[in-house]
Parts: sequence; C-alpha cells; structure tokens
Amino acid sequence: MHILILGGAGMVGQKLVQQLCAAGEIGGREISAMTLFDIVDPLKPAAAWPVSVRSGDISQRSVVDSLLVHKPDIIFHLAGVVSGEAEQDFDKGYRVNLDGSRTLFEAIRAQNYLPRVVFASSIAVFGGPFPEVIDDTFLAAPLTSYGTQKASVELLLTDYSRRNIFDGVAIRLPSVVIRPGKPNKAASSFFSGILREPLNGEEAVLPVSRDVRHWMVSPRTAAGFLIHAATLDREVLGDRRALSMPGISVTVGEMIDALGRVAGKDRMALIRDEPDEAIIRIVASWPQRFDAARALQLGFSQEVSIDDIIRNHIADELGGRLGDFAAVRGRGDQV
Amino acid sequence: MHILILGGAGMVGQKLVQQLCAAGEIGGREISAMTLFDIVDPLKPAAAWPVSVRSGDISQRSVVDSLLVHKPDIIFHLAGVVSGEAEQDFDKGYRVNLDGSRTLFEAIRAQNYLPRVVFASSIAVFGGPFPEVIDDTFLAAPLTSYGTQKASVELLLTDYSRRNIFDGVAIRLPSVVIRPGKPNKAASSFFSGILREPLNGEEAVLPVSRDVRHWMVSPRTAAGFLIHAATLDREVLGDRRALSMPGISVTVGEMIDALGRVAGKDRMALIRDEPDEAIIRIVASWPQRFDAARALQLGFSQEVSIDDIIRNHIADELGGRLGDFAAVRGRGDQV
Repeated sequence: MHILILGGAGMVGQKLVQQLCAAGEIGGREISAMTLFDIVDPLKPAAAWPVSVRSGDISQRSVVDSLLVHKPDIIFHLAGVVSGEAEQDFDKGYRVNLDGSRTLFEAIRAQNYLPRVVFASSIAVFGGPFPEVIDDTFLAAPLTSYGTQKASVELLLTDYSRRNIFDGVAIRLPSVVIRPGKPNKAASSFFSGILREPLNGEEAVLPVSRDVRHWMVSPRTAAGFLIHAATLDREVLGDRRALSMPGISVTVGEMIDALGRVAGKDRMALIRDEPDEAIIRIVASWPQRFDAARALQLGFSQEVSIDDIIRNHIADELGGRLGDFAAVRGRGDQV
Repeated sequence: MHILILGGAGMVGQKLVQQLCAAGEIGGREISAMTLFDIVDPLKPAAAWPVSVRSGDISQRSVVDSLLVHKPDIIFHLAGVVSGEAEQDFDKGYRVNLDGSRTLFEAIRAQNYLPRVVFASSIAVFGGPFPEVIDDTFLAAPLTSYGTQKASVELLLTDYSRRNIFDGVAIRLPSVVIRPGKPNKAASSFFSGILREPLNGEEAVLPVSRDVRHWMVSPRTAAGFLIHAATLDREVLGDRRALSMPGISVTVGEMIDALGRVAGKDRMALIRDEPDEAIIRIVASWPQRFDAARALQLGFSQEVSIDDIIRNHIADELGGRLGDFAAVRGRGDQV
C-alpha cells in the first residue's frame, strides 16, 4: 500500500505517521511506500519502506498532481489552515481549506482511479444552539470560516464519492487533548494547557469556569480514527460519508480531578483561575456532547476516560515521567 | 430600491418580476430600478422604472462586476443549472452553481457595501433516510450534485453574512407545482404534468403510485417567499440563514382528487398510470414533509391547499378558463 499524507507535519499527522510505521501495515495489507506532504517538510520517520518528504501549497494544482503520479492507494487529507488563522485571514482560509481540497479532488479525478480519501474534518462544522446531545442527523451550521470550509469539503467529498471519483470518508475530530508542545492563541488552548503544564511542573491559566463541558480525544486516538477510517469497507459507508467521531464529554473540573488522580493532588494547585470574558463567550458556543452512534457501529473505538488520556500523554510525550515542579518555563517546546 | 435578479429568465424569476412590477414596492420602499440577468436575455417587463436586461455567464467575474456597478440594494440569486443538467454535466454544474455563486459573493465583497442577497436554494439539499417530518435542525445530506452545490452555497452565504460581507438569506424552495409550459425530462416533471395537462384537456402519464407523497408550493407562492425573504429584518435572522420553506405535503392521489374537485371529474380520466421503475426509485428518496417552524415564525405564509394551487394556475396561466378536451398536444408551450 502506498500512503500519501497531506498535512504530515502537523501534530496529528506526525502521530499518524508514527502509528503507521509501528504497525507496518494498514487494514491487513503491508505498507510499501509513503509520501509526506505539508507546507513545510514533515519530519522523515524511520520506516521499513521508502518515504518521500515534500512541501508546497496544496491549492496549486501542479503541486498536487505531482503527489498523485504514483497513484497512492490511501490519501490522508489533514492539510489546512487552523481555525484561528482561517478566521483572521479570510482569503487564505478559503484558498487553502476549500480550494486546496477541491484541487486535490480534481487532481484525483484526473488520475482516473479510486483511492480511499480520509479527510480530517472537525466538530467545528457544528454551531449552537445545540440539543443536549448531538446525534448523527443534526445539521452542520458552523459559526466560523474554518467550520464552513470543513463542512463544504464534507459535502464535496460525499458528492465526488457518490460519483465514484474517489472513495471518501470525512471524520469529524473532537478537540484533541492533550496537545503536546507549547500553549497557542487558540481559544481552546487551555483545554490542553491545564493538564500539560502541571504535568510538566508548570503553572497553567484557566480562563473559564470549572463546569464548562467539552468533547475531546487524545492525539493517539485521533490518529487511530484516521487509520480505522482508511480501512472501512466501502459498502458500509453508503451515502453519508461525514462521520462524527466518538470522544469523551468532560468538564474542566473533571479534567482537573483526573489530573489529581493520575499525577498527584499537588499538580492541581498549579492551575490558576483567571476568567477571560472573550474566551468564556467563544467556548460557550462549542458542542459539549455527541451521540456518535454511526461511528461506534462502524468500529471507531471510544477513549475510555480522561485518566487514560493523561496516562497516554505521560507515556507518549513525557517518556513515562512527570516534569519536576517549577521547571523552566518553555520546557513544553522541547517535547 | 434598485433590484438585481440573477436568473431572471427562469420560471420563478419571471413570476418574481411580475409580482414586483405589480406591487411597485418592496418592504414598503419604492422600486427605482431593476436589472434582470440570465444566460439568455430575460423578458423585459412593463415597469414604472428603468429596467436593464442583460445576459452572460455568472461564473465570469467581469460579467458579475458589471452587474454590481450601481450597487443594487437587493440581489435575488436564482441563477443556476437545474438538477438534471447538474447531474449530467458535473463540471458545468460546479462551475455555474458553486463557482458562479462564489464569484457573485466575491464581487459583492469587492464593492464593499451590504446588500440583501436572497438565494434560491432547494429541498434537494436533503437526502434520505428521513424522519417522518423534517425539522429545522435536520442535516443537509444531498444525494445529487445539484443538492451538494446548493448546500455548499448556503454555507458560504452564511459565512459571508456572518462576516458582514453581505446580508444573505437562503430559502429552500419545495418542488414548484404547477410549472407552466411543457413537460421536461426531470424526474419531478409528472408532479406538474398530472395537473397541467388535464387542465389543458390533454393526457398525462403518471409514472409512480398514487400514494407517493411530496412537498410543494405554487409558482406564485415561491415568488412570494423570495420577496418576503428580501424584506426580513436583519436582526431576526441570526446565525442560521438557510431556511426550509413552508409548503404542502400531498400525495399524488390527493392531487388528482383536487383536480376532480376544482376542474371536474372528467379531467381525472386523462391521467394514465404507467409505472416507471427508474422514476419510482428516484422519487422514493425525496423529502415528503417538513416542519418549517422557523420560516413560519418569520412570516413566510403557507399555501392553503392543493385546490388553491390548481385555482391559481387556472387564473395565472390559463386566463381563468380550462382547455378544451383533446386540445392539440403542445398547447402548454404557448402558455
């Protein structure tokens, strides 16, 4: 199997590469080649097969054409501008996230073969008001340009698949927690920060109240969803190819309690409440809980608990050990 | 008020022009100018204000730019390739229906003002399986390229509106019955034909069973919805700007009974049952009933009965009198 990963330099992209390299196969078939593409060269993994690393702009047709010359069997499409940037730079968001995806779809069409395309969509396709639990028939009514672009690509992917131009699956990822690395300016940054920083022995700021609830998965699980999506039988997908993924619905308070259970109560004291009205308002419009019945039925397996997410982070990112207290600020960068 | 109508040569476009010309105003404000645009020159109405008639390709930016020079206050966007053609010609459908709409939206953005944009969407954005009644939170999961294009434009319109690039409303029109003119090759053609042809004294073929249920409005009501959408207060629209329109849910049997009530039982005998498996299959995937609660709350008024639709057709299209039996085939063309 020849695998192409667009957005291979990103956090979830790199997790995906690691899992594929560790498994050596996908859906019971051996991996024979891998192409990693992003706006910058992705890290080249140690792999038992040839790996080609490429960089460029996904909205340029010639760039995408060159990635498809060898007709990859599976195309993971994770490339895109993140939500904050898509909101800040209207043209760039549409050019990369919408036009870039359509450029990919048209380039596949020109190759005239039927690869599986796995598109990383997002729960950002949803916008409130919400029912208590969002089921598989709830409308996509995004409240950001990023969500609009993701929802539009889901529609195109479904139509192109119906037309047998390719065989697509869009999976709507929950917020990925704990993101390794340093805090960023996304409004969601604190969901990772309130766990990641204390695990590193550092202080974290909590801008919302502890009863705020959100829908999340670990990076490890998110990458696993992408792999599972790549191996689904075509027949079971039918006409609805955009799937809300399982996750866990937890409150900030429950996350902090889990931190205490897994890493010790003293870590909880590193979290400083510092309410931020702007972030409170944004986060209030985010989905809190899904009934991902269809995905569960299709075998996407759910994260067990927030405790597991914290344990996975310690194992995957911290080499199994917690950071000393009062560690130098910025240590997270090096993870 | 300067009004621009894109798709002004189409059936609903012409009804809209007639109603605007009859009213002389829109939302209590006098109409001062009108531009009608389509792929062919629309018919020029008798109006008390200057009317400019133009033709061209909506996906060409220079064409659209020229339509916006005088910054029309209200833009009715009805232009597009119909469902059958969008399914048959993939590239043309996307170019006109999706890219054409985006070209319009970008051209408005360049003019840097805030017109009301009313987009004629369709219940084709929905695809089965359906609940018994489709409410305002049901997902758009189109099963045609046409529906995909309409749903994508709804998303873009909503995002552009949220960004204050324009002030958009998308209204999802039910099937329009009775369409004047002759039968066409659309799978839905018979819904009009089984009423229109007998009213003309001609035979009609019914390709589905009489218990088939569908969601419809008259041409007069569809045009009225567009006008109402143009006059809605901005504040009441909020973040969800794609509205499913009211209509009536009737079975083919109920339509035929109404034909008998309004036009006489002898007209019913002009309908010949001739089951067509292909059409039966297509029509089975269409929505049958909506709860258009939000639209009703916003003042879109519902057609009273199929009897009214037939009476309106007789008044609007047949000059108030029924066709003689065994009229020459093709008479409908001249209506």
